[in-house]
Amino acid sequence: MTRPSVLPLLVPYALALVLTAVQVDAEPPTGGKTPGDIVAAAPVAAWSDIADSDILVMTLTGGKEVVLQLAPYFSPTHVGNIRTLARAHWWDGTSIYRVQDNYVVQWGDRSETKPLPPGVNPRPPADYTRPAEGLHLTPLTSPDAYARVTGFVDGWPVAGDGKSLWLAHCYGMVGAGRDLSPDAGTGAELYAVLGPARQLDRNIALVARVIEGMETLSVLPRGTEPLGMYAVAQSPTPIVRIRLASDLPPAERPHFQMMDTASAAFADYVHVRANRHDAFYSTPAEGVDITNVPVPIRRKPD
Amino acid sequence: MTRPSVLPLLVPYALALVLTAVQVDAEPPTGGKTPGDIVAAAPVAAWSDIADSDILVMTLTGGKEVVLQLAPYFSPTHVGNIRTLARAHWWDGTSIYRVQDNYVVQWGDRSETKPLPPGVNPRPPADYTRPAEGLHLTPLTSPDAYARVTGFVDGWPVAGDGKSLWLAHCYGMVGAGRDLSPDAGTGAELYAVLGPARQLDRNIALVARVIEGMETLSVLPRGTEPLGMYAVAQSPTPIVRIRLASDLPPAERPHFQMMDTASAAFADYVHVRANRHDAFYSTPAEGVDITNVPVPIRRKPD
Repeated sequence: MTRPSVLPLLVPYALALVLTAVQVDAEPPTGGKTPGDIVAAAPVAAWSDIADSDILVMTLTGGKEVVLQLAPYFSPTHVGNIRTLARAHWWDGTSIYRVQDNYVVQWGDRSETKPLPPGVNPRPPADYTRPAEGLHLTPLTSPDAYARVTGFVDGWPVAGDGKSLWLAHCYGMVGAGRDLSPDAGTGAELYAVLGPARQLDRNIALVARVIEGMETLSVLPRGTEPLGMYAVAQSPTPIVRIRLASDLPPAERPHFQMMDTASAAFADYVHVRANRHDAFYSTPAEGVDITNVPVPIRRKPD
Repeated sequence: MTRPSVLPLLVPYALALVLTAVQVDAEPPTGGKTPGDIVAAAPVAAWSDIADSDILVMTLTGGKEVVLQLAPYFSPTHVGNIRTLARAHWWDGTSIYRVQDNYVVQWGDRSETKPLPPGVNPRPPADYTRPAEGLHLTPLTSPDAYARVTGFVDGWPVAGDGKSLWLAHCYGMVGAGRDLSPDAGTGAELYAVLGPARQLDRNIALVARVIEGMETLSVLPRGTEPLGMYAVAQSPTPIVRIRLASDLPPAERPHFQMMDTASAAFADYVHVRANRHDAFYSTPAEGVDITNVPVPIRRKPD
């Protein structure tokens, strides 16, 4: 479980262990609960299985794994390409070659000379938005600097303008690197978001998110060339392989669940993230932005 | 210069080098300029020297340096303590012992047993806000999820409620770790912000910001214990020394400047960050939030 921790206390570790013994001065509006309390207490019905065919497992040199969940509804052509690239073992032997501090980490074929396998659409459409009609949006009530509305659709963070919705550049979201417009990339070059990047919303295709192993990417050395590209003297991180979980032998497949963003438990979780008031927090913000509400993801319990 | 790069293009490196040859389809409202263009063209008058007595140089094992700018106006008691601690060489031999992914990196005396030197106020007030009256606020016009107003005061990112203003938890901001309220920390245990943390605004004292070397902190291994504390098997990063620049021999002092946040150049910079429209961006967000407008900082030109 590598989503950002929901335990933001800054108290020392030893003290954190005895927090339950500490008196809070008054009953807060959240009952003193933390986001972690809500997640831990969420009923089984609040969790949805993620399909194995939507899970991509990236294995790096040394054996560390980074797991992605694909977003086929929002970027069907890119996700189709990604599945084709994974089945063709196209990424095997490529690398992570760009890390720009507080912005993005990017991987693929830096040389851009490796031929794409048959079946890859070389020109996916630059349709970065979806009609809002027919989608169940669980809105955030806090105002947003970048869009008229924000919220969640089927477990994904989105922004919108009333007519359309689009995926939002939150921490760990994965997009398709591209050349200048109207190019929309193929999905062969991918980046994960490390910092504020909402300005990229509607300018680039978001295709997935990292659901485990994000801290493996976030600690990689920053590139010293412009845009965080690795200099000649720096060593890109080799990618051993990228596979769909559904293409792994059954015994090797990881299984994940995400919290149902239309559930009562998720509503409680959002409320507490927007109104931190517990043993540590005295002044609730009474608001939270879409980049600060990571959708809880977990390994599926046995 | 280690503030987040203002070059957010995702185009490949080779292409980035020839961007000037690319035609943009129409004259955008920002004249096609990037934030980096604005910073590079800012006149000398748009830059203010940072006082040597407000600069703190942290030297880590191996010689890497992380440079902080203190915020004496907003947290005078904490900053007074920090100057006293630096002059007493109190941090020498302490360590960076906590790194929580996408949240904070924290340093000081993990054992919390090292006596504080004379002159340190053991109980700074928990006065996390300042009266807005008399402060020159350069407001951001985009709505914010956490506060009624956001903007900049004298080079610092702030949020406010109309009556009061307070420093905002943006990337690289440095705060004073504390125990449970009403404790406000002394400034001996410090943390730097790695990810979304605005919920800490008004709940903890922000005392400084990292102005160089943030990428040295952001790549440190994440702690595997709760709250990102380092496990016994992990190695905290030793702190060789922390000194005020004004206490270093003149030849060793680094000198910095920050962009004047009341200047026309800064207004242009904010406008372009909120309305990216250039060779890469087709759809400007028409908004930007306070955590996505790093105040430009540079080494003072010779």
